[in-house]
Amino acid sequence: MRIDVVYAPNAVTPADLAGRTVVVVDVLRATTSIAVALANGAKAVLPAASTDEALRIAQNLERDAVVLAGERKSVRIEGFALGNSPAEFSPEAVSGKTIVMTTSNGTQALIAAQGAREIIAGAAVNFSTVAQRARAALEQHGDLVILCAGGDKQFALEDAFAAGRLTKVLLPEGGLRRVTVNDGAVAALELARHYGERWARALRASAHGRELVELGFRSDLEMCAAQDTHPVLPLYADRRITAHRASNEG
Amino acid sequence: MRIDVVYAPNAVTPADLAGRTVVVVDVLRATTSIAVALANGAKAVLPAASTDEALRIAQNLERDAVVLAGERKSVRIEGFALGNSPAEFSPEAVSGKTIVMTTSNGTQALIAAQGAREIIAGAAVNFSTVAQRARAALEQHGDLVILCAGGDKQFALEDAFAAGRLTKVLLPEGGLRRVTVNDGAVAALELARHYGERWARALRASAHGRELVELGFRSDLEMCAAQDTHPVLPLYADRRITAHRASNEG
Repeated sequence: MRIDVVYAPNAVTPADLAGRTVVVVDVLRATTSIAVALANGAKAVLPAASTDEALRIAQNLERDAVVLAGERKSVRIEGFALGNSPAEFSPEAVSGKTIVMTTSNGTQALIAAQGAREIIAGAAVNFSTVAQRARAALEQHGDLVILCAGGDKQFALEDAFAAGRLTKVLLPEGGLRRVTVNDGAVAALELARHYGERWARALRASAHGRELVELGFRSDLEMCAAQDTHPVLPLYADRRITAHRASNEG
Repeated sequence: MRIDVVYAPNAVTPADLAGRTVVVVDVLRATTSIAVALANGAKAVLPAASTDEALRIAQNLERDAVVLAGERKSVRIEGFALGNSPAEFSPEAVSGKTIVMTTSNGTQALIAAQGAREIIAGAAVNFSTVAQRARAALEQHGDLVILCAGGDKQFALEDAFAAGRLTKVLLPEGGLRRVTVNDGAVAALELARHYGERWARALRASAHGRELVELGFRSDLEMCAAQDTHPVLPLYADRRITAHRASNEG
């Protein structure tokens, strides 16, 4: 059994992920917003690599059925209906809609993971739901990658902490003696030990968390730190992230 | 005052490092071997990006004055006099010689740092000497980057621990309240808290450390984990790493 934690999408190639289960984590804020959108009835979220690509994808969809969302430097892209604050993805805004989304790090990490066997979008808001699916994948395939979106190719504390929390709950009885982990997972577990279940503390300690507070997004941090408020399982396949229904299982 | 810890050379561009002081860390084993070579009387170490480049550089030097050193997949490059075990860089092998060296991660990280204001090669064997110089740079310029070589673009535990140890001893009284650190430094400090001064434990816990033991390099780990055995200050400028003499100071 093997768990790898990777701290930035540019540290892996498609070949590194082929055939594996990947949990993509961008707690602040893309994977949180994706989980909230799907929990609130969005039909799908379509990640786009750029503003232009988002517009191009949206053009091919029925105008009333699509919502453009995304940020650059944490701020909503001009002309887009939604930014990247999870609170914006309310049932009124997203129910029944297809969201086309482009963000600085999160959607890039999702796109980098394409080609993996299964791609799950994980955050605090859907933590236990994701952990359950990841545990099933580990049991069935013996292998899991947790891919942190990071920030501008750099290590991001909030994602590393989330990866550590997830690794910790997935460790079988007997802990590290019964599973092979990479160095990234060892360090992530150390952060999980330090912050415990205190998501808010880890998020506030992170550089991006402090930046968001300065930009006026303090309430986003609280929403992103709330564990299991949106127990949905977002799966990314064929360029679409959709909520996996329990009835589809096995 | 600012300290940034970066976990892989591909996470930074030359522009990110311009005008800054950079400590490059590859504890297992390149920066250890470089410190040992210089402490044992090597005139200079010239990092090369590839085997071909190493051969080309060596051709332009006097045959008797040059020693080729380096590894791929931890094993000595065929035809090279030395591999990357610090014990190989004995006074008999290196005194008065110019070492041309190419390794999988360490020399690549050094080359990536070119263009910085000052580049220091740091390891456990010269830890306090490097810390002293880094402290002086922080006091004078208010800024330091610790660049981990990592392994194949990935986070490496031994380098992250070394970065944490170095960050910890550099923190001014008042700790994190008096210095700005990036998320990488926060996580590195957590590893420093966990392993304390137990270099050997951190090195043995790392994936590359375990791999080296399997390949028969157990004694390398012991040598790489021994703090302050080779108190030399390797500075990299104009494509050459040389031992800085105290008499050159200010």
